[in-house]
Amino acid sequence: MTTDRKEPSYVFSDEQVAQKSALARHFLDTRTRLNANVDQADNYLVKRFYNLDHNVYLDGALSAKNKELMGLVASACLRCDDCINYHVIQSYRLGATRAEQEEAINVALIVGGSIVVPHMRRAYELLTELYG
Amino acid sequence: MTTDRKEPSYVFSDEQVAQKSALARHFLDTRTRLNANVDQADNYLVKRFYNLDHNVYLDGALSAKNKELMGLVASACLRCDDCINYHVIQSYRLGATRAEQEEAINVALIVGGSIVVPHMRRAYELLTELYG
Amino acid sequence: MTTDRKEPSYVFSDEQVAQKSALARHFLDTRTRLNANVDQADNYLVKRFYNLDHNVYLDGALSAKNKELMGLVASACLRCDDCINYHVIQSYRLGATRAEQEEAINVALIVGGSIVVPHMRRAYELLTELYG
Amino acid sequence: MTTDRKEPSYVFSDEQVAQKSALARHFLDTRTRLNANVDQADNYLVKRFYNLDHNVYLDGALSAKNKELMGLVASACLRCDDCINYHVIQSYRLGATRAEQEEAINVALIVGGSIVVPHMRRAYELLTELYG
Amino acid sequence: MTTDRKEPSYVFSDEQVAQKSALARHFLDTRTRLNANVDQADNYLVKRFYNLDHNVYLDGALSAKNKELMGLVASACLRCDDCINYHVIQSYRLGATRAEQEEAINVALIVGGSIVVPHMRRAYELLTELYG
Amino acid sequence: MTTDRKEPSYVFSDEQVAQKSALARHFLDTRTRLNANVDQADNYLVKRFYNLDHNVYLDGALSAKNKELMGLVASACLRCDDCINYHVIQSYRLGATRAEQEEAINVALIVGGSIVVPHMRRAYELLTELYG
Repeated sequence: MTTDRKEPSYVFSDEQVAQKSALARHFLDTRTRLNANVDQADNYLVKRFYNLDHNVYLDGALSAKNKELMGLVASACLRCDDCINYHVIQSYRLGATRAEQEEAINVALIVGGSIVVPHMRRAYELLTELYG
Repeated sequence: MTTDRKEPSYVFSDEQVAQKSALARHFLDTRTRLNANVDQADNYLVKRFYNLDHNVYLDGALSAKNKELMGLVASACLRCDDCINYHVIQSYRLGATRAEQEEAINVALIVGGSIVVPHMRRAYELLTELYG
Repeated sequence: MTTDRKEPSYVFSDEQVAQKSALARHFLDTRTRLNANVDQADNYLVKRFYNLDHNVYLDGALSAKNKELMGLVASACLRCDDCINYHVIQSYRLGATRAEQEEAINVALIVGGSIVVPHMRRAYELLTELYG
Repeated sequence: MTTDRKEPSYVFSDEQVAQKSALARHFLDTRTRLNANVDQADNYLVKRFYNLDHNVYLDGALSAKNKELMGLVASACLRCDDCINYHVIQSYRLGATRAEQEEAINVALIVGGSIVVPHMRRAYELLTELYG
Repeated sequence: MTTDRKEPSYVFSDEQVAQKSALARHFLDTRTRLNANVDQADNYLVKRFYNLDHNVYLDGALSAKNKELMGLVASACLRCDDCINYHVIQSYRLGATRAEQEEAINVALIVGGSIVVPHMRRAYELLTELYG
Repeated sequence: MTTDRKEPSYVFSDEQVAQKSALARHFLDTRTRLNANVDQADNYLVKRFYNLDHNVYLDGALSAKNKELMGLVASACLRCDDCINYHVIQSYRLGATRAEQEEAINVALIVGGSIVVPHMRRAYELLTELYG
């Protein structure tokens, strides 16, 4: 079953996020620097993976916001700080409230257990900078 | 931040699900049989964990349906067939469409990689019985 | 730091366990059959791994019983049913009580989260056959 | 860096594998049945994922055989029996010897630890049917 | 089966640990700072999770010391440095010897494999500061 | 099945690697410092594990280079930066080309999913320093 996909409308740009939060700025700058390096390598299969990854989160049967929150759940229960930062920022940019982000993290916490707690603590620091 | 939680309204009962799908029926019967055994053990901390687990998925800032779909994402990228079955059934009972379930599984597939594929195949078999 | 290791004294033999529990008997029989196959392959590094694995659980600074319960915790939070069965049986053979086994499983449950629950349910079925 | 990719030459067909090994036959039949179901769902992003997955293992800078053995290592240390079966069969079809398969599994065993052992045991059963 | 639980007696306070080890001090300070942030968010389900987590490690059928060592095993085989630091410190505070900590880590090493080694190296640095 | 193992011939020494790449130098220095600490602890089972680990990657039915690339795949899909650095360096020392390293990482990326991406980005930074 294939639902039409379209680019979502962002409430905030990456630049606005970077101005609001030092943690987000550091994350986005590092990501940009390292991705430039990956881009330069010009690996065809990596580029296809990136493109597919982009398509998965577009507006479709589920909204982009809800899928970014799902990406947050997946990242938190697989315990990847960079991925958590990315999806917290994307969810924020798409208008997710702090309460929605916390509830998504709670799903990851109960499914993934206390091993998620150190990542949750760091995510809350970012949430406080973004919403505080 | 704490949002009020309340029990969601289910579109279908477990019994209706079990009538519709042999896979669901087998899963629910096995789960009931094994849980009876856990209940009989009457372990206080297990009961508290079950209760907390129940509370995480109630209607709140995010709908119960969206959180069950998030539970599906978490279960698929952590690769637990029983957990996938449970959250597919719960999402179905709360009115999720097949397209919504497939998009949630796609998030897990891209985050978790091809190691998710065998679980996705089995999940699609359940989806076909429920929605087919 | 190296502590002297010695073979522990078992309260029950594998045969006694197999007589008490159909689940344990099925697990032990399958393990014996598959291990015969591995033994026949006679892979030097696999044999060394098996020998090292055996040494880790011997009586030392910690008792063999406590280390088998630790193996149970590791197996449950890494979610391997065969490994859980093995360490439940070994802990039982070394005199662990049911309450001790449940507390070890609770550590795995809180560290590993609800994804551990289906494995916990199956472990409780084995506990009931062994201690019931 | 992008290396030209091309379809590898298989030494054995799926049919020959299925004739040689009952375990392989059961795996391939189940996979075919479940994949038919996924194909029928016709999810665009799943199809793109499958296509990308196919491309990763083609002959390139590394031979298809070596990459299938790498897929075996990844599958074994992530502990997915279906994925292990798939890559053991693909490696066999591409001419890998039993000694090569065992060495690949040993890498997964040392990196992934004893939690890999139950999967290794089942993989050895398949190896014995294929090479015995 | 529910065993009475009670708060364990600590041999050392957090302050004594922080005086003895710079690594422990840094870990405890960071944890306190980040937890203050989580506390301020006042998320009801997070607080319940923290409370349940606290209860799991109390003296019961197994001693608090043994359960903290089990938490160390779980943390090491799930590969979470913060969690490893926490449980090494708690085990130390409850009187675990260095030999006991090393044997617990060995269980995680054999179950979890060489992927645990980098975490083991860092844990040994903390052990040396605490016991050296 | 046991194949004779022998020490491989390295194209580059650790010192040459450290001169070429600041990232590699930092990794190797930290590893040496922390391993000195582990060596001093003189834990018999850790030493046996290290020795077994060393033996797994020697030239045998598969070349040391191919097994180091397999170690890279395992490390990337289990998401351990230290382990990725180690196996990238070892593969480089044994003459692997950049294209071979990228193809190995692609296997890990497709098997392990987007959760591997942040580790891939950091690996590419090391690849650029080594091969650039």
